[in-house]
Amino acid sequence: MDILDIIAKKRDKKVLTREEIHYFIKNYVSGEIKDYQASALLMAIYLNGMNNQEISDLTDEMKNSGDTLDLSDIPGVKVDKHSTGGVGDKVSLILGPMIASLGAKLAKMSGRGLGHTGGTLDKLESIPGCRINLSEEEFKKQVREIGIAIIGQNEDLDPADKKLYALRDVTGTVASIPLIASSIMSKKLASGSDAILLDVKYGSGAFMKTMKDAKKLAVTMVNIGKSLNKDVKAEVTDMDQPLGMAVGNNLEVKEVIDTLHGRGPKDITELCLDSGAIMLVQAKIFNNKEEAHKALVENINNGKAFEKFVEFISAQGGDKEYLYHPEKFPVAKNIIPVYSLRSGYVNRIDALTIGESSMRLGGGRETLDDVIDMSAGIVLNKKIGDHVEKGELLATLYTNKDNTKEIYDKVVRAFRVGKTVLKRNSERILIE
Amino acid sequence: MDILDIIAKKRDKKVLTREEIHYFIKNYVSGEIKDYQASALLMAIYLNGMNNQEISDLTDEMKNSGDTLDLSDIPGVKVDKHSTGGVGDKVSLILGPMIASLGAKLAKMSGRGLGHTGGTLDKLESIPGCRINLSEEEFKKQVREIGIAIIGQNEDLDPADKKLYALRDVTGTVASIPLIASSIMSKKLASGSDAILLDVKYGSGAFMKTMKDAKKLAVTMVNIGKSLNKDVKAEVTDMDQPLGMAVGNNLEVKEVIDTLHGRGPKDITELCLDSGAIMLVQAKIFNNKEEAHKALVENINNGKAFEKFVEFISAQGGDKEYLYHPEKFPVAKNIIPVYSLRSGYVNRIDALTIGESSMRLGGGRETLDDVIDMSAGIVLNKKIGDHVEKGELLATLYTNKDNTKEIYDKVVRAFRVGKTVLKRNSERILIE
Repeated sequence: MDILDIIAKKRDKKVLTREEIHYFIKNYVSGEIKDYQASALLMAIYLNGMNNQEISDLTDEMKNSGDTLDLSDIPGVKVDKHSTGGVGDKVSLILGPMIASLGAKLAKMSGRGLGHTGGTLDKLESIPGCRINLSEEEFKKQVREIGIAIIGQNEDLDPADKKLYALRDVTGTVASIPLIASSIMSKKLASGSDAILLDVKYGSGAFMKTMKDAKKLAVTMVNIGKSLNKDVKAEVTDMDQPLGMAVGNNLEVKEVIDTLHGRGPKDITELCLDSGAIMLVQAKIFNNKEEAHKALVENINNGKAFEKFVEFISAQGGDKEYLYHPEKFPVAKNIIPVYSLRSGYVNRIDALTIGESSMRLGGGRETLDDVIDMSAGIVLNKKIGDHVEKGELLATLYTNKDNTKEIYDKVVRAFRVGKTVLKRNSERILIE
Repeated sequence: MDILDIIAKKRDKKVLTREEIHYFIKNYVSGEIKDYQASALLMAIYLNGMNNQEISDLTDEMKNSGDTLDLSDIPGVKVDKHSTGGVGDKVSLILGPMIASLGAKLAKMSGRGLGHTGGTLDKLESIPGCRINLSEEEFKKQVREIGIAIIGQNEDLDPADKKLYALRDVTGTVASIPLIASSIMSKKLASGSDAILLDVKYGSGAFMKTMKDAKKLAVTMVNIGKSLNKDVKAEVTDMDQPLGMAVGNNLEVKEVIDTLHGRGPKDITELCLDSGAIMLVQAKIFNNKEEAHKALVENINNGKAFEKFVEFISAQGGDKEYLYHPEKFPVAKNIIPVYSLRSGYVNRIDALTIGESSMRLGGGRETLDDVIDMSAGIVLNKKIGDHVEKGELLATLYTNKDNTKEIYDKVVRAFRVGKTVLKRNSERILIE
């Protein structure tokens, strides 16, 4: 077999065999196949696509390129959750404890934030003492005993994805559904859970800009699950405005605490209840979503969900005093209110602008080497559909930086305020 | 400007501007743009194509990436000739002296043979003493005084083509008309002639397998000439059987000598007369091809074409005794006749098989590091359309290797002998 023949086949719109995909992944990871050959193949895949069989073969070969986690010695159905990334997306930290409080086992490897998107690991680390680098044994023990653990990705997991992702980033081959789907799914499958719920975001703050593309990606990933005998379901949800009110690490943790106490924003509460219900059915703890939903509401009201959160964070070394007394979290020195320039209805809150502005206030990283200011970010005061008066508070910026005039202007313009309420598509669908 | 934007534009089927092409070539040659980025762009060009303006911009930028030869101090129209390569193609060595004997100035940089195709430089070096590495001054002086010089390509000429060609070779992006056309034309334009005649081959022994593709490439290159104000014409000619009878370096030089004496094979004699006539009109020495053709025949008959060949080879250090007494050329120790297995008409002589067999007999190189045996090769005894009896000589193998049974079998099978003469398309067209 020869990489030139494989490139030529995909270039000529032919279907790659399992053996050819195996040959490519194995020899690319070993360095035998060069970056310049891989990038030619990636561009051919970008332009000529892959069928479902090729995509699931690629996913499986990428998964097999490194270590895989074996969770079979933990009793019960192990569930996992993945969001394609958004602004203010703190869902895992809320629904994880919610479903664990009802007996589900969530064994999740998560990522760092980059650019306008936040990362669950950074949010966890904003809680003093909280560790995200548990050993495999610690991780499994915690899932077994507490029902939830969230850690960073094992370095030896899915090396093919690490190399391919870095290459796609510098060769204009990121936005390809076969490549995105195999990248996400190979990592998820390597981390060993039995059932996975995906949240594929669309809208200005998401990687997929349209509902249509998000749906296509969701269907592709659910099909990979079917091919590889994993229970994979996918929600397609909008990211046309930030999720919840808080954007920025410890600001979001405070919103997590509020939501687990039953006083969180409506949109994020609803999403967590819906996603949690789906996962509880996947975990075979409930027979239908309605019962699961009811039980989740109950565990918020009786405090069990919040207590599971405290147990989970404490197990990973986090100081629970911050969870009981969120006023202890450090607060940025500059607190800047952003006022509306006109009266009317909020018709849009550009999530990309809010995410980027939070990053520039110190709350995110532009490159992986940047250090995050855990107290920086933005808290919204209005969401889409809300009425606002001229001069009324739209949002508050939190930062330790000075000279934030430019960011202020961007944030104020991120809110589109009109005379009437615009009709808006925020449909949420489930692919299974 | 950013290479990622340029890749994305071509990936999305958009047209690249002159500035973008300039940026790519300049920064790829300097190493700023990486091979893996260039190969992604090459694959996008392969799959999405380029319009005429982009192709001529790319050609001009490649030409400008290194030194260019200035021939303006040589009086008259300097002409050049390029064949896309074939088997037994010794045309330059024949028509060069032919047209120079009538006052044309041929300043040609040529290449080495690789794989099944021979190279003019190797054929020249099969003449003892003949040098192909003249200095620029020697080269220009020889063109001025004798009317013809053929040398190897200056190392500092068209570095963009050198890098891109090597990269295309290992990334499945060779067979792209925009990339082939810009590669050929940038080199030709960098070597400074005023008028160029291209010979675009099609058929089994050629790079372009069909007349249609060859014509497309020819039209593309003539259009580049028009855009860049160069007189470029292109013949499209078949390479379904080897050109002439001899394949292999000193075997071909002997055929060159025969042809210049007026006793060469019909196909190569006709092609040299036709091409020569076109070039003499391009050189503004004759007003029409018919007059030029007549003068060429005359200079073969009166010996002036052959004498020009002797003058040209002597000027480059070659020993003219070999030209006057071709029996002095070393002869391979094994001379193996190949006999027909059946009676009938020769309907095909697979040029690719003949070229590869000649290479394997020692007459060519598989990689650029191989050393050529100048006496090795194949001399045909029959051409397409000829009648042959079972047991009659089809060809003769010349080699210093032993164990040539496998090659013998391939050569005998390269001849397709049938009961009737098959109709055959050997149309030759001129694009101007």
